[in-house]
Amino acid sequence: MTQKTASGNFFEDFKIGQQLAHATPRTLTEGDRALYTALYGSRFALQSGDGFARHLGFRQSPIDDLLVFHTVFGKSVPDISLNAVANLGYLGYAEGRFLKPVYPGEMLSASSEVIGLKENSNKETGVVYVRTHGRNAAGEQVLSYIRWVMVRKRDAGARVGETVVPKLAACVSPADLAPPHGTDYATLFDTTLSGSPHRWDDYSTGEKIDHVDGMTVEEAEHMLATRLYQNTARVHFNQYTEGKGRFGRRLIYGGHVISLARALSFNGLANAVSIAAINGGRHVNPLFAGDTVFAWSEVLDKAEIPHRKDVGALRLRLVATKNRICADFPDKDESGKYPADVILDFDYWALLPRKL
Amino acid sequence: MTQKTASGNFFEDFKIGQQLAHATPRTLTEGDRALYTALYGSRFALQSGDGFARHLGFRQSPIDDLLVFHTVFGKSVPDISLNAVANLGYLGYAEGRFLKPVYPGEMLSASSEVIGLKENSNKETGVVYVRTHGRNAAGEQVLSYIRWVMVRKRDAGARVGETVVPKLAACVSPADLAPPHGTDYATLFDTTLSGSPHRWDDYSTGEKIDHVDGMTVEEAEHMLATRLYQNTARVHFNQYTEGKGRFGRRLIYGGHVISLARALSFNGLANAVSIAAINGGRHVNPLFAGDTVFAWSEVLDKAEIPHRKDVGALRLRLVATKNRICADFPDKDESGKYPADVILDFDYWALLPRKL
Amino acid sequence: MTQKTASGNFFEDFKIGQQLAHATPRTLTEGDRALYTALYGSRFALQSGDGFARHLGFRQSPIDDLLVFHTVFGKSVPDISLNAVANLGYLGYAEGRFLKPVYPGEMLSASSEVIGLKENSNKETGVVYVRTHGRNAAGEQVLSYIRWVMVRKRDAGARVGETVVPKLAACVSPADLAPPHGTDYATLFDTTLSGSPHRWDDYSTGEKIDHVDGMTVEEAEHMLATRLYQNTARVHFNQYTEGKGRFGRRLIYGGHVISLARALSFNGLANAVSIAAINGGRHVNPLFAGDTVFAWSEVLDKAEIPHRKDVGALRLRLVATKNRICADFPDKDESGKYPADVILDFDYWALLPRKL
Repeated sequence: MTQKTASGNFFEDFKIGQQLAHATPRTLTEGDRALYTALYGSRFALQSGDGFARHLGFRQSPIDDLLVFHTVFGKSVPDISLNAVANLGYLGYAEGRFLKPVYPGEMLSASSEVIGLKENSNKETGVVYVRTHGRNAAGEQVLSYIRWVMVRKRDAGARVGETVVPKLAACVSPADLAPPHGTDYATLFDTTLSGSPHRWDDYSTGEKIDHVDGMTVEEAEHMLATRLYQNTARVHFNQYTEGKGRFGRRLIYGGHVISLARALSFNGLANAVSIAAINGGRHVNPLFAGDTVFAWSEVLDKAEIPHRKDVGALRLRLVATKNRICADFPDKDESGKYPADVILDFDYWALLPRKL
Repeated sequence: MTQKTASGNFFEDFKIGQQLAHATPRTLTEGDRALYTALYGSRFALQSGDGFARHLGFRQSPIDDLLVFHTVFGKSVPDISLNAVANLGYLGYAEGRFLKPVYPGEMLSASSEVIGLKENSNKETGVVYVRTHGRNAAGEQVLSYIRWVMVRKRDAGARVGETVVPKLAACVSPADLAPPHGTDYATLFDTTLSGSPHRWDDYSTGEKIDHVDGMTVEEAEHMLATRLYQNTARVHFNQYTEGKGRFGRRLIYGGHVISLARALSFNGLANAVSIAAINGGRHVNPLFAGDTVFAWSEVLDKAEIPHRKDVGALRLRLVATKNRICADFPDKDESGKYPADVILDFDYWALLPRKL
Repeated sequence: MTQKTASGNFFEDFKIGQQLAHATPRTLTEGDRALYTALYGSRFALQSGDGFARHLGFRQSPIDDLLVFHTVFGKSVPDISLNAVANLGYLGYAEGRFLKPVYPGEMLSASSEVIGLKENSNKETGVVYVRTHGRNAAGEQVLSYIRWVMVRKRDAGARVGETVVPKLAACVSPADLAPPHGTDYATLFDTTLSGSPHRWDDYSTGEKIDHVDGMTVEEAEHMLATRLYQNTARVHFNQYTEGKGRFGRRLIYGGHVISLARALSFNGLANAVSIAAINGGRHVNPLFAGDTVFAWSEVLDKAEIPHRKDVGALRLRLVATKNRICADFPDKDESGKYPADVILDFDYWALLPRKL
């Protein structure tokens, strides 16, 4: 009799260059789109109204970029992070790029390559770096990103290979962004319907925006979301076990926080309709049910996109807090330490229409 | 640097005749339909079974009338009621008409015209009356209704125009209802599949029906619903702020109450498959998570529809309570005062099949 | 004036041979599929990825077998079990067969025949046995099962007919299973994408599998699920009434437990992609919100399917617990008595790909 239950990979199971094809291809549909709206209340016009999207040259409203991200991420969990340490200081993302729109009815698959391994000095854990790819049914890449996470060893005595720490780009180059084809955002983008007159040209580097609104999270909501992404990380679902653990309660999936903060950011960034790249992201404190999430953004940079006069990119820092309004833009201190009520520091490129 | 965050209109920002095109067009899909079923458990056959609807001459099951209403209503919130006073005594609806079925895949947009303004004597607030239109992608009106709400002034000293209070019809005329085209309800409507033998002819003016069942509401449910409608009214979502407010907790969107009561009304009104008009509606007490909603109906009137022998209209009063069964039909007293456990008094025209 | 509210059938209303056509035909869509994923986190590849299903010869991913079951079951509640006694010892299923895949867009209807009646000696209740059929819009049977439930009498003095207790098969014969047509599972089934290398051949009779993971249930979740199935059984929804009842709280629909346990069983049975038959099932203790569900399975039998070398059947016992891990396979004792933390004992045939 063989062991039928998957226990996930431990640190010593990973090898540099290893390819992992993740299970359970997933067709995203109008149903997922509706659930995403119900979970976050997102109001970006491109993802909400098919006619708005068609007017811009899209086939219909594409699936929200973060729903694509969470779906691909969820597939990688059973192979990469089932034995992760719930230590927020040691996980992150880099070099994420959204390469093609995903439409309702498209099936996503995911695979990862191990690109870095670093055992910790305690020999009980190590950090695993993977590049994960999401592909549509035609095999085209729709998303690619690097992720790292601290994973337990099955056996502290197990020998592991040499340390490899990949060199990560601090920021995706604007030349590597993939703006929508065959459209003229400057001419065709309706800023009345989109909810804001502010185009790319209206934002300035250094500008900070308090997104004002707050959203309280319930256990049922984050679990519905995380199951929708078929993410099996145990800390999110099992109160029986987590009740006895470090926090005494279920930890909310970090991606849920990103989606909440992104939805809140509509108020101030309504025309930032697409996420083109994830430069980096850190979950700097945990979120629990009952907490209320607030968010603010900072414009880190502005970039033109090669050969495009109609659409521009803003490099945005999206900071989320819990139970703290953001009128004073709560931030890390000079030493890089975050207040206990800051939960997310997320760095991404957004695409916005430019002025004519 | 401009102010990027929308703060909504204040009372002094509104002018009689002002036209407001609301943001975020919204395509309603099979996903929204499924969520609506999950949120309310609605069992009206027309909206549940595509084959039942096709047999009657519909293209497929239309989107539930109230989901159309909530979607259009939600679009108007950022422009009309973001600065509303949570004073249930000063909001209401009138002259609502459902003009065309909306099918999955159709995109709705909304606009409003300011038709009334009345500053309160305290100079700090005023009542705004708007007529709101919902349109499909072809620009056809699918819904039109009047709504009023009390809105704060930004500046108590701001001067405002003359008071205009629109004359509101007490009831939509049966001649203005828009019954389904090209069908014969009397012949084709299957009362076994619909769940009740009682046709239009079987109801009498003055008849009261206790809908018997009760439904307890959870925070996650009303927030999922209200986000699905992209309704951004802050009182529904933010426990951090509301916890310090008047009620100490999140207030449930009034439309959620209407949908709950309507779903409960199936038991007694299973053949009232369409809402043709909203004559009026008042949220007379607030609902909170943990409360259990019950409902009863009264037949206020019966009307034939011009040129139609197959379908008739019932004018119904739908009354909802919280934590109180409706066997004794809880109601306002002679002075018009409602008991504290009555939460809704909603007056609408429903369409039912007639006898052969 | 007639009584408009349906009060359901009481024991004395049922007659042997009686046919009941249940109300509210229901079209299952991509929206229901997405909600099912969000509610349970199910990861079986056949139901998740349309391309995976097409590769095997399906039109697209079929609707999850249990979502079909719950939908058909829900339709029968208003006619069969609205006046059921919430006595878990007296309800069960037998001879359930899934006869045809159901695809998004298909409408299901349900009907039942009364096949058994047995009044209890107290004359206040009796057990009703029905065979329920689910049909698609073409009238083809997609599901058939026997169910029994204890139902109250309206009037203890009412006379009832002779006792008829149907003879129930202990197990559906493998020859009566309906495996998918026109495919070759042995060749075409991709066990990397499905999430497990273990095919039918790899399981042994008597083998037990601890599914390891646990899932905590919230009130909002089980109510969303049960409303999605349009199941109107009152004990699931009404805290006002149930708070005064036997358990002091809402009872979770038994089918929700089956779906939770089935989703957990992925970890160990990832290739058991279809439920072909329900041999029997008992809800041996109630589940309440806040409890955490765990599950284990036992292989009761293995069967070849006539004329098929590519797909085989496993007879599985799926046992679910609350707030108790399943490493020691919690089970009934020699007298047949279950521990208080075992909630489900479910016996079914699953279909798995065989080795080449």
